[in-house]
Amino acid sequence: MTSESDDRERRQGLVVVNTGNGKGKTTAALGVLLRAWGRDMKVVMLQFIKHSTANFGEHRAARKMRVDIIPMGKGFTWLSKNIQDDKALAQKCWKLCQEKLSSGEYDIVILDEITYAMNYNWIPVAEVLEALRSRPKGTHVILTGRNAPPELIEFADLVTEMVEVKHPYKRGIKAQRGLEF
Amino acid sequence: MTSESDDRERRQGLVVVNTGNGKGKTTAALGVLLRAWGRDMKVVMLQFIKHSTANFGEHRAARKMRVDIIPMGKGFTWLSKNIQDDKALAQKCWKLCQEKLSSGEYDIVILDEITYAMNYNWIPVAEVLEALRSRPKGTHVILTGRNAPPELIEFADLVTEMVEVKHPYKRGIKAQRGLEF
Repeated sequence: MTSESDDRERRQGLVVVNTGNGKGKTTAALGVLLRAWGRDMKVVMLQFIKHSTANFGEHRAARKMRVDIIPMGKGFTWLSKNIQDDKALAQKCWKLCQEKLSSGEYDIVILDEITYAMNYNWIPVAEVLEALRSRPKGTHVILTGRNAPPELIEFADLVTEMVEVKHPYKRGIKAQRGLEF
Repeated sequence: MTSESDDRERRQGLVVVNTGNGKGKTTAALGVLLRAWGRDMKVVMLQFIKHSTANFGEHRAARKMRVDIIPMGKGFTWLSKNIQDDKALAQKCWKLCQEKLSSGEYDIVILDEITYAMNYNWIPVAEVLEALRSRPKGTHVILTGRNAPPELIEFADLVTEMVEVKHPYKRGIKAQRGLEF
């Protein structure tokens, strides 16, 4: 039996964007990670916002699966007093993403919540598009986050908008462990 | 350390619906399954459409994780010559769902692509709502599929619509292993 990863040479990797104000952008990317792992494909998820010490459901799962889910951010305190620090951290994260994207070692590279880094002008959109364009052709890439830049949507193969229809926060119910993080 | 499952007695389980014509409905449910499994919570996914012999990425992953993802359908041949057979199978599937929902053994029960069974009038919507209403209160339930019935949306706590913005099928690119199944 040949490994699914052998397809990497032959296939045309897709660029997938999960955007919108609703739930399920990161969560659907985790679902892809699960499916790909089931097929012994090689996947990595790099997270721009979640704090580098985060230990949520997905990080616990990743350790059990021996898959890399790498939180690189500062959590909800990203927008700190020092904008230069924020920008420097985002660019450091982006450097690691570029290495993973160009390595050819992965079937799927997930850039989680990267849209915020573009929207805050920490990473130029053109640089992200260039990295996508020049990646080894078999690598699928998933990018998540609200307000995906129009140039990225234009470039992508598959774009889904997750739209909030109804949200329990509005009734004062807080986020649920396991379900949402 | 207490198990997350201990919360089952205390919390109010949520009813979550992933609907819409876009990608990510089942996939986001799989992402929740991954997170919950990471937290040692008990999860089951029952699939109405996927063929009972299906061996897609999620089924392979489930075996490795020792989680139950149970395909119960007939794949794309659901709408067969014999509508009574289809209805009987759907109702048999629904019986298993009812058992899982009422058992109190699960933190999360996922009813994947169940909306089709309601929309084809194989299962009455009122019966689904009754099963949700009478379930042990700590059980979270996720229901997926296009065209979720309005009564279900009304009843649910969290509803997301996955909207197709751009799809590669339209350029003749077929579904990708690992990424989409």
